[in-house]
Amino acid sequence: MEIGIYFKFLLTFGLILLAARIGGELFERYLKQPPVLGELVAGIIISPFALGGLINDPIILHFATIQGAFGLHEFNVMEVISEIAVVTLLFVAGIETDVGAFLKQGITGALVAVGGVIFPFIFGYFITMWLAPETGIAGWLFVGATLTATSIGVTIRILMEMGKLQTQAGTIILVGAVIDDIIGIVILSIVVGIGTAVKAGSELNMVHVGLDALKILAIGLAVWFALLIIGVKLNRYISRFILNPFKRSGTIPIFALIIGFIIAYLVTLVGLHPVVGAYVAGLMFAATDEREDILDKTRPIMLFLAPFFFCYLGMQVDMRLLWGGAIIAVILTIAAVLGKITGCYIPARFAGKMNHTESMIVGIGMVPRGEVGLIIAGAGLLAGAIGRDLFGAAVAVSVITTLITPAMLKPFFKIPAKSAKSTGKPLQQEE
Amino acid sequence: MEIGIYFKFLLTFGLILLAARIGGELFERYLKQPPVLGELVAGIIISPFALGGLINDPIILHFATIQGAFGLHEFNVMEVISEIAVVTLLFVAGIETDVGAFLKQGITGALVAVGGVIFPFIFGYFITMWLAPETGIAGWLFVGATLTATSIGVTIRILMEMGKLQTQAGTIILVGAVIDDIIGIVILSIVVGIGTAVKAGSELNMVHVGLDALKILAIGLAVWFALLIIGVKLNRYISRFILNPFKRSGTIPIFALIIGFIIAYLVTLVGLHPVVGAYVAGLMFAATDEREDILDKTRPIMLFLAPFFFCYLGMQVDMRLLWGGAIIAVILTIAAVLGKITGCYIPARFAGKMNHTESMIVGIGMVPRGEVGLIIAGAGLLAGAIGRDLFGAAVAVSVITTLITPAMLKPFFKIPAKSAKSTGKPLQQEE
Repeated sequence: MEIGIYFKFLLTFGLILLAARIGGELFERYLKQPPVLGELVAGIIISPFALGGLINDPIILHFATIQGAFGLHEFNVMEVISEIAVVTLLFVAGIETDVGAFLKQGITGALVAVGGVIFPFIFGYFITMWLAPETGIAGWLFVGATLTATSIGVTIRILMEMGKLQTQAGTIILVGAVIDDIIGIVILSIVVGIGTAVKAGSELNMVHVGLDALKILAIGLAVWFALLIIGVKLNRYISRFILNPFKRSGTIPIFALIIGFIIAYLVTLVGLHPVVGAYVAGLMFAATDEREDILDKTRPIMLFLAPFFFCYLGMQVDMRLLWGGAIIAVILTIAAVLGKITGCYIPARFAGKMNHTESMIVGIGMVPRGEVGLIIAGAGLLAGAIGRDLFGAAVAVSVITTLITPAMLKPFFKIPAKSAKSTGKPLQQEE
Repeated sequence: MEIGIYFKFLLTFGLILLAARIGGELFERYLKQPPVLGELVAGIIISPFALGGLINDPIILHFATIQGAFGLHEFNVMEVISEIAVVTLLFVAGIETDVGAFLKQGITGALVAVGGVIFPFIFGYFITMWLAPETGIAGWLFVGATLTATSIGVTIRILMEMGKLQTQAGTIILVGAVIDDIIGIVILSIVVGIGTAVKAGSELNMVHVGLDALKILAIGLAVWFALLIIGVKLNRYISRFILNPFKRSGTIPIFALIIGFIIAYLVTLVGLHPVVGAYVAGLMFAATDEREDILDKTRPIMLFLAPFFFCYLGMQVDMRLLWGGAIIAVILTIAAVLGKITGCYIPARFAGKMNHTESMIVGIGMVPRGEVGLIIAGAGLLAGAIGRDLFGAAVAVSVITTLITPAMLKPFFKIPAKSAKSTGKPLQQEE
């Protein structure tokens, strides 16, 4: 029975979760690191580019997003499951968010996002211009854009595990990462526009590119604000018309999560990443009376699925590519870390009036590039704007920034922050 | 960005869950039927053969197992997710099972399974011989085999929703359905063997076919018993060596579920269906001290995913095929229902010494063919043993038996059964 091939996906699913769990456990127990880091490293180890490559089977552990997503010869089942996992994670993060604090930190969060984009972009652009001048302006722009990304997932997990999601710093990181995603798609559309024009040798119509970028920015911000306002101002109506019909059957939490999935998709229609939609959907329900019930029933689902996302993320890393541009990779990584910390620290410290420790937490929390960096770099490789060496370097930036964030964050959480209020229970024991 | 195609799967996933939830809610509230029936009907309505066919999109709602599984031109993402869903369902069912009762009912359960195979098989064989004599022995055998299947999922959900999983009848249905699966693969291997030989016009080596069947039977039973004995006799060691290492991080439930997925795959290596492995894995943990903790954290995951499986199952139904052999479909369905009830009632009543009501519950509980019937019929269509009319009839049998079971079961649960002990809380509110 050929249907047996489907059963093999069960094994793949189980093996990834198993590797993630063992990796998470070992890192937590013996290295005193957050489990999420162990999950990432477990993914790198079992990836088809490492240990997984030894198993000569078309399904078991053989898939890599970058090829799968851009080749599209066949759909990648595990990719879809990892999307489901990260949407669930961000939905739960949204519900755990203190909506009032979220709105109060809006300005600071926006400034943190802008600062966290400008500095790494300039650093990335000029370093590439200096070290790889032959790539040309399209390549410099792409590397700069890769460095602006922020993957909210890793930091969210760490904040959750430490019970710091509802601190002021945690909230600003969330606001910043969401706005960063909106700025990110604007930048990507600009660099793709310029890159294509430069490659084709055609005249560059900056007015056109600028107008397109403004349009995307306006739509992204409008959709995001609309959802936020609906959630905050109309939560009584959400309870009455969306949630209450499912009260009697006790399926409110599940229905809320389903709505989260649909909103996660809908925001992609205006170019936003599904995690932004999932997060805002969570926020929508965070102000309702049903919050605790929703949280109680969706958290076990998130705790089951989230490690899959992180392990799968690790599996995308081709260690061999990292050596290609080793020197430029190291320099770009340093620039990415310093650029992000500087760009986020300054607004947090001076506009947000946070103390040094908290501002550092915000800055470091925005450092991981994760899968967002991988996606932008993949788009650049595909557009021909960057070669495999710069692509390898961009991958290295994504991986290393993601891997070092937990260790960099930890010491700052040990310093008791005055204005930080931690209302969330630490999830570490529950996970 | 072509990666957007992956986002569309989020929509598909969300829409299926949404349809399932609304269908389940409407059936429960207005028709006083179990939600699982509403999920099935919602699936039939949104299937690509009905409403879903109006949406001209390669991904949204466009997939059907029978084509997907046997064509294998591209992997079907939703098929994998539905496998994950049903594995989770059976794992939780295993944990909820009273292991002592399960063992006590072993003999009765086995007799119920055997009776539930023999009667429908004979009925199906001779009815097809009478109504479709031109099909030949291979076709008669295949239709007979289709009628022997039992889909444990539907009955499990109903029993769970009514809090009757831990009654004597519930336990016997579980035992019977598990053993039925083992007998089912033996029969399938026999009919495929005979069918292929007859089609090819080659001489039929019954000794060979018989030996192969015996081998499959022996392996299936041995693996199943081994897992059961490990769970029942060695539960102290399971706690100490498998679960306890994850106690400190609070991830025992998640680790147990991961083990469930891996065992679900492993049993497919000896030809068993993954749900059998998932169920026995659940049983393994049902005797441990960590049972309550595991149940508490895995049940929300099951409640989220299980409706997906049932809605997806409904989506496989091509209503147009049902009209092809309408008369034979009706007769076969009646035979399938009466055959199963008779074949299971007799052993339950006389070997199991159950009263009439309980014996009827056992008989009706074994009626739904669900996806197992669809799989066998699909194999017959592919082998050329049956034409599209008989395939349509077999599909009708699977669908109708699955749809009518909840309504048939309900009245018998209203009669207070003397020896029935219901320790499980009704899950209806929680779901």
